[in-house]
Amino acid sequence: MASPVGTLLDARAGQAARREQILDAACACFVRNGFHRTTMQDLAREAGMTAGNFYHYFRSKEALVMGLVQREREGGALLVTQLQREGDRRSALFGVLEQYFGALTRDEAVLRLEIWSEGTRNPAIADLTEASETETRTWFEDTFAALATSPACDPAALYALLAPQMTGVVASRAILPDFDMAGAVAQIRALIEAGLDGRLPAILEAAPESHR
Amino acid sequence: MASPVGTLLDARAGQAARREQILDAACACFVRNGFHRTTMQDLAREAGMTAGNFYHYFRSKEALVMGLVQREREGGALLVTQLQREGDRRSALFGVLEQYFGALTRDEAVLRLEIWSEGTRNPAIADLTEASETETRTWFEDTFAALATSPACDPAALYALLAPQMTGVVASRAILPDFDMAGAVAQIRALIEAGLDGRLPAILEAAPESHR
Repeated sequence: MASPVGTLLDARAGQAARREQILDAACACFVRNGFHRTTMQDLAREAGMTAGNFYHYFRSKEALVMGLVQREREGGALLVTQLQREGDRRSALFGVLEQYFGALTRDEAVLRLEIWSEGTRNPAIADLTEASETETRTWFEDTFAALATSPACDPAALYALLAPQMTGVVASRAILPDFDMAGAVAQIRALIEAGLDGRLPAILEAAPESHR
Repeated sequence: MASPVGTLLDARAGQAARREQILDAACACFVRNGFHRTTMQDLAREAGMTAGNFYHYFRSKEALVMGLVQREREGGALLVTQLQREGDRRSALFGVLEQYFGALTRDEAVLRLEIWSEGTRNPAIADLTEASETETRTWFEDTFAALATSPACDPAALYALLAPQMTGVVASRAILPDFDMAGAVAQIRALIEAGLDGRLPAILEAAPESHR
């Protein structure tokens, strides 16, 4: 397999693996010390590389954050594809929620918080976060529309309720050591079930005066 | 009013005002540059003070964060006290939600995100955040118990649903430029109304299989 093409492919696979290793190292550093107290030298050391070699892969901390957000997006898309191939759309929806939140480590949640925080001051990171949020919203709304069992299901309103809930669950995982993730996932699932069955609008649209 | 006591009181009022001014300056700096890129010199400059005089009030950036969290707690407690004095407990509950979230500026939300993020690495900040969270939970659960109009209202379960929702609303205010805060507050209010009236357990406890 020492053909030029084979060698090229090996080199590409090696580069991709090295990139993954660097992103893991960056995640560890950012979680431990935060984005701004982490230097490019810390990152190279954590990845076991020389600074020169490191710069060949990522030229700035910002590029690393972008790489981390991109990897998270791709991971999410892969999970969705896998689950949709394995079962029906409903199982895929709940499978995505259970696997994403169930597997979310505290470090991953802390990294997410760090990226959100940095995004408030860095337009490039904010743009990527927003693009990611738009993709997520589109996928959820399309899935809700496809799975609705009642005409009273409003996919956009359901997502508007769930989006801050999911954001808050990730933040709580980072902030509160004893956060009940299993309970939170069960609540999200129950809210979606109720939304698809058209049982939520009665709750969310009821004017406070109308039922007292 | 040049009596010794009067002079002492004037000095204390002056110190308290100066402390407020420093906390405002710290908020501006932390929002603009983040906690770690802000130096004590930046903070003194923003507050219009010499570094020496500044250190007389706060000896570290951590002390400033603690001061900001403390001020937020006191502000919340004051708002609750005022609203409870003005009207019934129900109006106070919804008044607190509307005033807190309605008045939450993007800068305040960004500061909150920054403090949460820093709390993941700083035990003193995490302890204060947790103490604040415990106070908030106790107040909400007591208020829900007092206002429940149905035996099916479970104050702890209702708060467990609302806590990540409220956290996510604050985070979303910081992260998403177009976040619909009025809509989010209306949703929180509607969830509480439903919870107090005992209409939520049917939704949250329904096993996914049981109603299909």
